[in-house]
Order: sequence, then C-alpha cells, then structure tokens
Amino acid sequence: NNNQQYRAEIMDRLLKRCRIKSRLFRECLAEFFGVYILILFGCGSVAQVTTSQNTKGEYPSINLGFALGTTFGVYVPKGVSGAHLNPAVSLTLCVLGRFSWTRLPFYVWSQLFGAFLAAATVALQYYDAIMDFTGGHLTVSGATATAGIFSTYPADYLSLWGGVVDQIIGTAALLVCVLALGDPHNTPAPPGLEPVLVGAAVLVIGISMGSNSGYAINPARDFGPRLFSYIAGWGDEVFRSNKIIHLWMCNKIFLYKQLGILFHCNHDTEPTKN
Amino acid sequence: NNNQQYRAEIMDRLLKRCRIKSRLFRECLAEFFGVYILILFGCGSVAQVTTSQNTKGEYPSINLGFALGTTFGVYVPKGVSGAHLNPAVSLTLCVLGRFSWTRLPFYVWSQLFGAFLAAATVALQYYDAIMDFTGGHLTVSGATATAGIFSTYPADYLSLWGGVVDQIIGTAALLVCVLALGDPHNTPAPPGLEPVLVGAAVLVIGISMGSNSGYAINPARDFGPRLFSYIAGWGDEVFRSNKIIHLWMCNKIFLYKQLGILFHCNHDTEPTKN
Amino acid sequence: NNNQQYRAEIMDRLLKRCRIKSRLFRECLAEFFGVYILILFGCGSVAQVTTSQNTKGEYPSINLGFALGTTFGVYVPKGVSGAHLNPAVSLTLCVLGRFSWTRLPFYVWSQLFGAFLAAATVALQYYDAIMDFTGGHLTVSGATATAGIFSTYPADYLSLWGGVVDQIIGTAALLVCVLALGDPHNTPAPPGLEPVLVGAAVLVIGISMGSNSGYAINPARDFGPRLFSYIAGWGDEVFRSNKIIHLWMCNKIFLYKQLGILFHCNHDTEPTKN
Amino acid sequence: NNNQQYRAEIMDRLLKRCRIKSRLFRECLAEFFGVYILILFGCGSVAQVTTSQNTKGEYPSINLGFALGTTFGVYVPKGVSGAHLNPAVSLTLCVLGRFSWTRLPFYVWSQLFGAFLAAATVALQYYDAIMDFTGGHLTVSGATATAGIFSTYPADYLSLWGGVVDQIIGTAALLVCVLALGDPHNTPAPPGLEPVLVGAAVLVIGISMGSNSGYAINPARDFGPRLFSYIAGWGDEVFRSNKIIHLWMCNKIFLYKQLGILFHCNHDTEPTKN
Repeated sequence: NNNQQYRAEIMDRLLKRCRIKSRLFRECLAEFFGVYILILFGCGSVAQVTTSQNTKGEYPSINLGFALGTTFGVYVPKGVSGAHLNPAVSLTLCVLGRFSWTRLPFYVWSQLFGAFLAAATVALQYYDAIMDFTGGHLTVSGATATAGIFSTYPADYLSLWGGVVDQIIGTAALLVCVLALGDPHNTPAPPGLEPVLVGAAVLVIGISMGSNSGYAINPARDFGPRLFSYIAGWGDEVFRSNKIIHLWMCNKIFLYKQLGILFHCNHDTEPTKN
Repeated sequence: NNNQQYRAEIMDRLLKRCRIKSRLFRECLAEFFGVYILILFGCGSVAQVTTSQNTKGEYPSINLGFALGTTFGVYVPKGVSGAHLNPAVSLTLCVLGRFSWTRLPFYVWSQLFGAFLAAATVALQYYDAIMDFTGGHLTVSGATATAGIFSTYPADYLSLWGGVVDQIIGTAALLVCVLALGDPHNTPAPPGLEPVLVGAAVLVIGISMGSNSGYAINPARDFGPRLFSYIAGWGDEVFRSNKIIHLWMCNKIFLYKQLGILFHCNHDTEPTKN
Repeated sequence: NNNQQYRAEIMDRLLKRCRIKSRLFRECLAEFFGVYILILFGCGSVAQVTTSQNTKGEYPSINLGFALGTTFGVYVPKGVSGAHLNPAVSLTLCVLGRFSWTRLPFYVWSQLFGAFLAAATVALQYYDAIMDFTGGHLTVSGATATAGIFSTYPADYLSLWGGVVDQIIGTAALLVCVLALGDPHNTPAPPGLEPVLVGAAVLVIGISMGSNSGYAINPARDFGPRLFSYIAGWGDEVFRSNKIIHLWMCNKIFLYKQLGILFHCNHDTEPTKN
Repeated sequence: NNNQQYRAEIMDRLLKRCRIKSRLFRECLAEFFGVYILILFGCGSVAQVTTSQNTKGEYPSINLGFALGTTFGVYVPKGVSGAHLNPAVSLTLCVLGRFSWTRLPFYVWSQLFGAFLAAATVALQYYDAIMDFTGGHLTVSGATATAGIFSTYPADYLSLWGGVVDQIIGTAALLVCVLALGDPHNTPAPPGLEPVLVGAAVLVIGISMGSNSGYAINPARDFGPRLFSYIAGWGDEVFRSNKIIHLWMCNKIFLYKQLGILFHCNHDTEPTKN
C-alpha cells in the first residue's frame, strides 16, 4: 500500500544519510567487525565449555566455534575489505604488492581492536559464569583456570622449538588450503561458499593440530584477547608464553611471503571493489 | 501411459481446488508451519536428550536440533511469507516500513500458535518417555526436571542484568550474521542455501552463547512452548523467569530497529511474491 | 597418445555392450542400489557403535550414518529411477497418478531386496565383531543384544499408541521437509544438493525423534533387514513389535496421500527421464 | 596507486619465472601435495586423539579428520592432476585406458612419497607429545601404543578373511559413491563441491566401516606412513598385518577395474587439462 511505500522511501533516504563516505573507514570497520565476530564465537565457545565444565560442549565444540566464527567472520567483511582478518595476511599482501602500505596500520589496528573488544564482550557475557566457576579467582593455570578462554597456551610438555614447528606447520596448512580454494586456475570453491570452506579448513586444523598449543594461527586473534585478559585481571602470567608467540609470528610472516609467491597468493585476497 | 496422464490431470484439478485463495491466509499458514517445524525439531531434540538421560544425544545435539530446525523452518515458508519466524523480526520490518502494520498481528499470532502447537506435539510424541522418566511428576527443577524441554531457563548463577546482556549480545550476533548473509552488496549466501547458513548461525550461537540462558533469541519460540508447559501441568513456576524475558524482548526489538537501519535490513526479508 | 586413445575406444564399445537395454530393469537396479547404500551405511554405523561398545562412535554417529547413507542412497539412483527408496513413496506416487501401478511391484521388490542384501552384507562385514561381542549368542534383548543392528525396536516404555503417534509425526516431518526442498514454487534446494538436504532432514529427525522407536520411517529399510535377522538366526523375537509396524505403515501411506495432495507431492519425485 | 601497480607487475614476472615448465612434474607435485594434505590432517587427528588421551577429540574426530583431509587433499591437486591420490585409482585408469602407463610410476611414487613425508611431518609436529605420552617407548600395541597414529591395524578379533571382506566392501562403497557423484548422466555433485562430497563419503565409511581394520582404503595412505613408522623406530612389528594388506590391495585393484567398467569410471577422473 502507499503508506508502506512512503515509509520505505523515507527509510532509504535515512540509509543514504547513514552511509559512511570514507572508503578506508568502511574497510577498517569491516575488518573490525570480521575479527570481532570470529573472536566472539570462538572465545565464546571456549567460555561455554570451560565454565559449564564440559556439560554444554567439549573440545570439538571449540573447534566448531572457531570454524563457524571464521565462516561468519569472513561473510561479514568480505565484500568491503576482502576479509584479511589477520595482520600477517595484510602484511603479506603489502609485501606482494597487492595491498598499499599506507592502509596496513589501519587494518592491523582495526583487527587488534576488534579482537580486544570481542574478548571484552565474551568476558561481559560470561561474567556471572566465570565468577561462579572461579569464585572470583582469575587464574592462568590450575583446576579453575580461565585465561584459556581468551588466548592460547602451549601444553606443558611442549618445548620452545616444538611450539615453533607446530605453528609453522599449522599456518602452512591453513595457507595451502585457503590459497587452493581461491585459485581460479585450480578447482575454486563455489562462489558464495568460500567462507564456509575456509571455516572447514580452520575446523580440520583444530581437529588435527589443536592439542599442542591451540592453533593460534592469527596474531590478532591471540594478542588482542591476551592483552584484554592481562588488563582485566589475569595478571602478567598471560604473557609468559611470549617467546613462542614472537617466534611464530616472524616465521609465519616469512612463510606467508614465500608461499604467497609460490601459489599466486594474489588470487583470492584482492578486496572486491565497491 | 494414458491412464496415468488422466489420473495426473484429475489430481491437478483437485490441487487447484485445494489451493487457498487468500494470500494473507497462505502467508499465516506458512509462518505457522515454519515455526512449527523449528520447535518440533528443536524442542524434540531437547526431549530426546532429557528423557534418554544423555544416552541418545548430549548438549551439542540440542544445538544441532535447533540449527537444522531453523534451516527447515526457513525452507518451508520462505517462498510464501519470507520466513520471519519471529515476532521481533515482523515488528522490526513494520517499523522499517517493509511490512504492513495490518498484517503484523496475523503473523505474530500464527508464529505463537505454531510454537504452541509444536510444543504440544513434542509433548504428545514424548508422552510415554516423559511419564517414564519423571514418574508422572512434571517439574521445572530437580533431577527429573522436564520443563526445559519446552522453554529456556537461566542458569542458577545468572543475574538479571547478566541475562539481559546475554540476550542482547546473542540477538545482535544472530542479526549481524543473518543480515550479512542476505546483503547483495556484500558476499551473499548462494541462492537456495540461505536457510542452511542461517541454521549454521543458530548453531554457532548455541555453541558459544548457549550456557547462560539457552539462547532463546525468538520470543515466539520461547513464549508459545512456555505457555503450553504452563497449561499442560508444569505449573506457574515456568513463568518465574518472566522479568528477564520481558526485558530482553524490549531490548531486542529496539536492537533490531537500530541494526536494521544500519545494515539495510530490507535486503533479505522482503517476502518473495507468488 | 594413440595407444591410449585406442584403448579408450575399445572401452567405450565394451561399455555400450554392457549397457542394460530394459529401462524398467535399469530403474529397479537403481532402486536396489539406492536402498542398498542407505542400509549398508546406516546399519553399518549401528554395527560399529554396538560391537565397539561406544568406543568407535556413539548414538549421534548412527544418526549421521543414516543421514549420509540417505544422501548417497539418493545420489546413486536419482538420475535413473527418481530415488523413491521407499515403498510408501512409490505407492503414494501411484495413488497421485505420478507413477504407473504396473511398475510399483518391481520397485517395491527391488527396494526390499536391496535392504535385505545390505543387511546381509553388514552381517558379513561385522561377522567377526558380532561373534566376538556376543560370544555367538545372537539375541534381541540383553546386554549383548545385536538385533538392533538390523532393524528398529521400540523403547521399553513405549505404548502401542505411543509408537503409532511417534511414527506418524516422524513421517509427516520428513515429508514436509522433503516436499519443501523439492517445491519449485517455494525455495527449492540448489540443484545437485537435494540429496545432501534430504540427508540433513533424516539427521534432524534422528536427533529429535530417534529415542522412542528409532525413526524407522521407511518400511523397506525396516522390513528387509528384519527379515534377514530372522533368517540369520536372531529368531522370531525380531517380529514381536510387528503390530506397531503394520499400524504405522498403514498410517504412513494414508498420510503420504493426504500430504502429497496438500503439498503438490508431484514436484520433486517425477523420475528424470534418461 | 602507481607504486602498488608497479610492485604487482614485478611480482607477476617473478611468478612467471617460478612457473614449472614440465607438465608431468607439475602433476606429480600436485599428487604429492594432495596426499600430503590428506595424511597431514588424517594422521594428525589420530595423533591428537591418541596423545591427548581422548580429551581433545575422540574417534569421530578422526573420521572427520580424514574426511576433511580428503576434501582439501582433492581441492589442492584436482585442477592439475585430477586428484587420484591413490595408486589403485591411477592403475585402474591405466587399465581402462584413461591414463598413460608411462606416467603411472611417477604418480605412484609421488603419492607414496607424499604420504611418507606427511607421516614424518606429523611425527615432527607431535614429537614432544608422543615422547610425553609414551615416555619414549614407541610401541605398536599396549596402553601407550602410538603406531596407530601412522597406519591402520586390524582389531584383535579380526580374521584374515574378515579383513579381506571388510576391505572389499569398504572400497566398493567408496567407489560407488565417488563414481555416482561424478557421473554426468546421473545426479552429479554441484561444480566445486565434489571434494566436499567425496569427503562426506570418506566420513560415512569411517562411521560405518571403521572399527574392523580402520578403513585403510588407500594403499599410499597406508604404506607410506607404515614405512615411516618402521624406519622411525616402531620396529618391524608394524609389518605384521602384511598379509591382509597385500590381499586387499590385489582385490581392490581388481574391483576398481570391474566397477570402473560397469560405472563408466572415466567420467570423473580425467585430469582437467591446463
């Protein structure tokens, strides 16, 4: 009816007003939202498993949480920013000349900020649960340890080099899968289903490479929430496994560069113009 | 052969006769069926897990039951009514001027009635199981509590504000995912697979936000079965967690409106004409 | 190279020779293979869970076994026979004038024979396991009962009418989903993925309606293996739950007819010509 | 901006330089990578379940690991080599005149080498975990047996003929599914999703036929890692179940040939030219 069409027109005008002019800002917002969704679902699933003491999900549901988190974390920003979701990816694209160095810092900050805020959201949503489970003692280790909700910690048996090797293999595996899915000269994923298959890649990595150090194959995913847990009261113990992290970040970025060249990394990561 | 073609023609005439003339009635019937399927599978999976005492499925199978329930609950009515399945969605669309206020009450009643009748169906289907499991004592809490089959109850540790925050975050997450999947300016889901991906969004929300208060992110899904369990003999205890519900319903509708404007909610929810 | 092309030509001629002329026979063969695959995977998963005493899969993996069994059981014959896989479906299509009465008996026999032979195959494949698990005592009930591998048995608490209601609801749910997926006037499943979504429907029914009497929503699936287990040495106890089965078969066929008319059953079940 | 375009051009020239001229070498590299991915994820999931003593995944996650491993193991080489991933497949295609005998040895060696190196990678990645779990005693049987990470061992109850039958049925099931998915005269899988559905076939076989002897339906998948575990210190006990393996390899190749002819094996396995 007319009244309805009239309201719709008004709405359209409003929407046009709301539209953000700056393309860079829209891209940063997209990256922010993408990483935010990824961490919200991923860390949320860890929080649910931890605080419910495995009664409302076990380890596999964490794998699935991060997998589907990735899927929707790619769906949300893909059309706007190309869904890097990962500082190492953005940096690699710069090195490969597929992404401008000037936009790099904005992307990285958006990603880190998204991860940080998502961790805060999970902490807010599970505040009562965490308090009830820990009795208010926020610890990194022990029977009621909850720091693992936010960032990853290597298994006790893991040596430094073991952690480095684990991260290199995990990242290489993710990369080979993602690049194969996006390579038009190969068998690309069907249009519109790439995010689902990238999620599947994250799922299988969690199933086959998760037990050593929690497959933290994304610096933003790991550092943002870790920083939050440090500030929020888990203390500086959260930064003990620092060395490993730094090492694999370097290794990873180097790796991205090499593999990127080998596999024509440029196919699937060019942000779609709009 | 001719005989077969003849029968087919007769059938076609019969079908034409059966065809419902009123479009509004067809839409209401569609919404009714959609919510009915959603609750039939969703609450059914809870009933199976509860009455089989985790031997024929555990918490994750409930997440999957609601996820696939949503998938088929969207497939069934989508072509006719646009598959709102949710009073808050219908209301939001009215506010956004995408849906006529005159049809709103019919939609909402169909949704509530579908949820109510589905709960009754589950109770009928699991009557023997519930009687065997509870010994005839229909309780809301305790070792043999069965009210949870029909509607959601917050965890003991959950504070009022904790529940409100939980619901706001859960609804916002669902919305962002659903809107991204339907946004043609972004990376939309492949045609014909939207229902599957909406189901995946419900799945990941159940995996990452299910333990606080059971992610009842749909007023019809929660109120219809709750009313049934009240009438069917679980007593007025089922309405104890009322306050939370009212609060998040308000919050949610407000939220839908805001986000709807932000994300051009109109893309994926216009009922397809037929 | 030439030698290779030459071999290929020879092969093509061989294939042409092998090609079965009679279309009816090809269709029956297709139905046979479809049901065979469905039961091979479905009952196989039950055998694995039973004989491994839940160490190599639990109840959900049985749901998944029948779901994926259905998926591939539809992929294999769909192009040839339309993948009825179910006597009730074939009969309904006859009643609806979409399938010739003359072909009905051939289809039903192929389906039953496929189910029977698949049960025999599972028994052959798991012979050592069953012998090791049961110590050679093939029983229908008790701690080492193995008759459940082949056909479904109602839970102890289930009353006759409870079983009937359970079967009617289960079959109706399956039908509504399958018909919605195939209805071009609605939101049909993407071409080539119908079998996957039909499998998903079977999965959610197993998750939400499996605990009462094992969702035996297909007479061929239930009767063929039951007959085998009777012959193979489980004794006539396997036919005790007969009454229920007969009742729901009648109810189901009646139901198919009604719903078929209501939902234009003809859309998705016409065998594709070839 | 120009600077960026300039860098991109340089990169393209670099890529052209990197491009491998020999088509055969590219195909072998593709087969190598495909099997490598398959085993990396498959055996990795076994390693995670074994060394974490079922706390970070149980038997089903192994099924999923091999299923998704197959999916990505097909995505990676499909466009280049047709993704045989299996000596028996390559051999069958030769027999069917669809693949040149001259390329056969290169393919088989690439597949075996990929499987061997992937097993080594898994051992490297899980070195600390295996040492911590076994205390340094690498055994084939016993409470802390770890040889099962690399290759499959029949259950204790399994007789020789039982193993042979198990393997024949498993291979036949896989074949029928894969051939149906690729048969254009039937209902083929949607373009770009074949790898996912082949993975689903592997999943359902693992769910329904995994408990007898671990569904080692691929000689390369089994022999490569077995050889590695022999060399790496698990001793010659890893070759005890030899007889079975040889038998089913012969049976399988024979089977492939027969079924291949019956089902027009040629449809889905011709390597796509590029």
